[in-house]
Amino acid sequence: MEILGQTREELLNGLIEFIRIPSISTLPENKADVIRAAEFVAGELKQAGMRDVHLITAEGRHPLVYGEWLGAPGKPTLLLYGHYDVQPPDPLDEWETPPFEPSIRNDNIYARGACDDKGQTYILIRAVAGLMKTEGRLPVNVRFLIEGEEEVGGEHIEEYVASKPANLKADAAIICDTEMFAPELPTLCVGLRGIVYGEIVVEGSKIDLHSGVYGGAAPNPIQAIAEILCALKDRDGHILIPHYYDDVQPPSPKEREAWARLPFDEQEYLEKEMFAKELVGEPEIGLFERVWARPTIEVHGIRGGFVGEGAKTVIPARALAKVSSRLVANQDPVKATGMLKAAVAGAAPRGVTAEFRVIHAAAPSLVDPENPFIRSAAAALTEVFGKETVFIRSGGSIPIVGVFHQSLGIPSVLMGFGLPDDRLHSPNEKFHLPNFFRGIEAVAHYLRKVGR
Amino acid sequence: MEILGQTREELLNGLIEFIRIPSISTLPENKADVIRAAEFVAGELKQAGMRDVHLITAEGRHPLVYGEWLGAPGKPTLLLYGHYDVQPPDPLDEWETPPFEPSIRNDNIYARGACDDKGQTYILIRAVAGLMKTEGRLPVNVRFLIEGEEEVGGEHIEEYVASKPANLKADAAIICDTEMFAPELPTLCVGLRGIVYGEIVVEGSKIDLHSGVYGGAAPNPIQAIAEILCALKDRDGHILIPHYYDDVQPPSPKEREAWARLPFDEQEYLEKEMFAKELVGEPEIGLFERVWARPTIEVHGIRGGFVGEGAKTVIPARALAKVSSRLVANQDPVKATGMLKAAVAGAAPRGVTAEFRVIHAAAPSLVDPENPFIRSAAAALTEVFGKETVFIRSGGSIPIVGVFHQSLGIPSVLMGFGLPDDRLHSPNEKFHLPNFFRGIEAVAHYLRKVGR
Repeated sequence: MEILGQTREELLNGLIEFIRIPSISTLPENKADVIRAAEFVAGELKQAGMRDVHLITAEGRHPLVYGEWLGAPGKPTLLLYGHYDVQPPDPLDEWETPPFEPSIRNDNIYARGACDDKGQTYILIRAVAGLMKTEGRLPVNVRFLIEGEEEVGGEHIEEYVASKPANLKADAAIICDTEMFAPELPTLCVGLRGIVYGEIVVEGSKIDLHSGVYGGAAPNPIQAIAEILCALKDRDGHILIPHYYDDVQPPSPKEREAWARLPFDEQEYLEKEMFAKELVGEPEIGLFERVWARPTIEVHGIRGGFVGEGAKTVIPARALAKVSSRLVANQDPVKATGMLKAAVAGAAPRGVTAEFRVIHAAAPSLVDPENPFIRSAAAALTEVFGKETVFIRSGGSIPIVGVFHQSLGIPSVLMGFGLPDDRLHSPNEKFHLPNFFRGIEAVAHYLRKVGR
Repeated sequence: MEILGQTREELLNGLIEFIRIPSISTLPENKADVIRAAEFVAGELKQAGMRDVHLITAEGRHPLVYGEWLGAPGKPTLLLYGHYDVQPPDPLDEWETPPFEPSIRNDNIYARGACDDKGQTYILIRAVAGLMKTEGRLPVNVRFLIEGEEEVGGEHIEEYVASKPANLKADAAIICDTEMFAPELPTLCVGLRGIVYGEIVVEGSKIDLHSGVYGGAAPNPIQAIAEILCALKDRDGHILIPHYYDDVQPPSPKEREAWARLPFDEQEYLEKEMFAKELVGEPEIGLFERVWARPTIEVHGIRGGFVGEGAKTVIPARALAKVSSRLVANQDPVKATGMLKAAVAGAAPRGVTAEFRVIHAAAPSLVDPENPFIRSAAAALTEVFGKETVFIRSGGSIPIVGVFHQSLGIPSVLMGFGLPDDRLHSPNEKFHLPNFFRGIEAVAHYLRKVGR
């Protein structure tokens, strides 16, 4: 059965070609792949009938891909956003099939970026391509803006949007980079956490020292990082930095009630999605609130000293940890960064220096579900999926939502088609193919609805 | 000027040839180098006139090198111990000259193993070779037993000594693997710390998780290791494990007084030896006692999650830390291991499992300064160096001392010629050449004294 004049095989082959490109934005050695992915997107936009398709480049940045169709005067203009870059695939040995050789098993396509965000970006492209193919025109005006730095902080798109708002005039954005709350359950995301991501760098002695000779007198930078991490957060997940929660806006009673009605099995979430032994975090706060509406501090990686096979009795000169804090409305990333810097420096034990160096930061965002673009998106999803659309938040960060709001003054419709068990950022990431196909239909249906 | 009929050039060339072999016992890829170093030692012993020179091999072990000269009936027999294996040289980029290309600057020879322990092992070999060359015989009987696993726990020599004590019958051991308290100051070491070395392994979820989606609910194994490390030791260096200090024997008032008379400049130690900002550790305990006579817990390396360039928002599935505890008389390594295992498992926060896996362990040792072999060693050193010999302890661990005591019933004379700033286990390890030459004289003088 064709979707808007496109066979499933054709849609799938295009997606596979897109995913095969290892466009890992954080690794310098994959720079050429990142550019190849941008060119692939540009080629697809041209083939879809978009005009003015081009790469927006800047020194030291991965390109943005732009394309537009503005042939519907008097109709709203939608800004369509996705990203073509992906996370690194490591640890490689945990993948059942290689991360950049897409493998289809049980209606899922397994690969790095299958869901986040190539599969979803491709939904936007193919919805527009299908409408152009079957109707020769679009019901609304569209501008595509697809970035290649989402996984590394998105500086390029932020700078571009902030500096050239006139090039991107639109009434609303559609962002296809979130998930459905459950299979078959149409979902709109109305809140995102912000983030401050950085490194804790600790330095002790100028040289590595022998723990036999100096153990008992020498500062140990790894122990110091441990002490700093424990000073930032208690064993129950409460952040210990003074005033860190001051600006946190709790969810409204109405939102809490809606969350309580969501179909959810905590045991299944624990065992089949997180593969964990126990849910942790602030014990007095409910699960959805903990992951959607509370700030966190997490350590993502740590390095220091000898970690080869066997034993080396070294007290290393330095150690480093990658740490982020997720932020929620109405926390300010600049203020949070200042607090983190002061807390890290202040928690350094005797004999070491400790510094928090920011890599990137983004504000949290919260959209109004009563906005007409959100309301018609909810109606379109309900019609395609045959179920009432639910409103959720996401614990992740999509910084561009805040940028679109601030620089373009437009709301973002977070219409996502991922599933909770898609293993974003982990080995064996997947995308559910029925969602891919239905996503194309849903986006097209929404464009028609907005154009009416 | 020749030393026992050997030119300095000849002695130095032999040492350089020995050091050039990268016999890193902990790295499987250096296995052939380890064997080459053993063969080098065997060749030198043959050339020195030792008899029954052979490698003692065992499955999965690095060889021991044995050689003897038992032509002095009625005289004491000394067991001469050293080790030909070395620590890994990393971090490589901090070496001023490559670690296995010995470089002589300002009377020092710079290389991995220059002091620990190739330089000192070679002192023993060349003292004996010189006596044989100039006198055609030795004043005492000697047995060399040189091992290749000192830096990885020394299982092979322990097993061999324990299982074949009759092959090693001797009256005392000389161990050349410690340091002089200060340049030109003859020193005997009478106490060593023991050690338990292992890994803390922490496991959370079975898969890596996205910190946006799950942060606030997912267990974080790196944070868990931080919490465990902080539960083992407080910010002032006090071990928090119940009863861990129960068996610690404090130094005698007499030993404390002797330590107080040692020539020592704490500021110089801090700045020129440790290159540190501040001395840390138990504030109420003196420096020598902290590093010589108090147990410690140190973390030597830590690994987990993403540590590449840039940012990855992962909550890793597992993390690992290399940790050791130095032990002092009369702590028992088996008892300490049990306490560490229980403490690590008990300190694991919710949602993770934590285990302490032992890699190796050794008992502390304390020798009696009134033992006749120690007293004549002190006298010999005083005569060669022209200064009163001082008695110190070492914070390091030389497990073989305990093994010789237990299996052979003999004391060990710890006659070392390293210097405090020799950077053992660190980049730019060095050995002071005047100590190398004088060490050969001192060992020969001691053998003559024992033989009288």
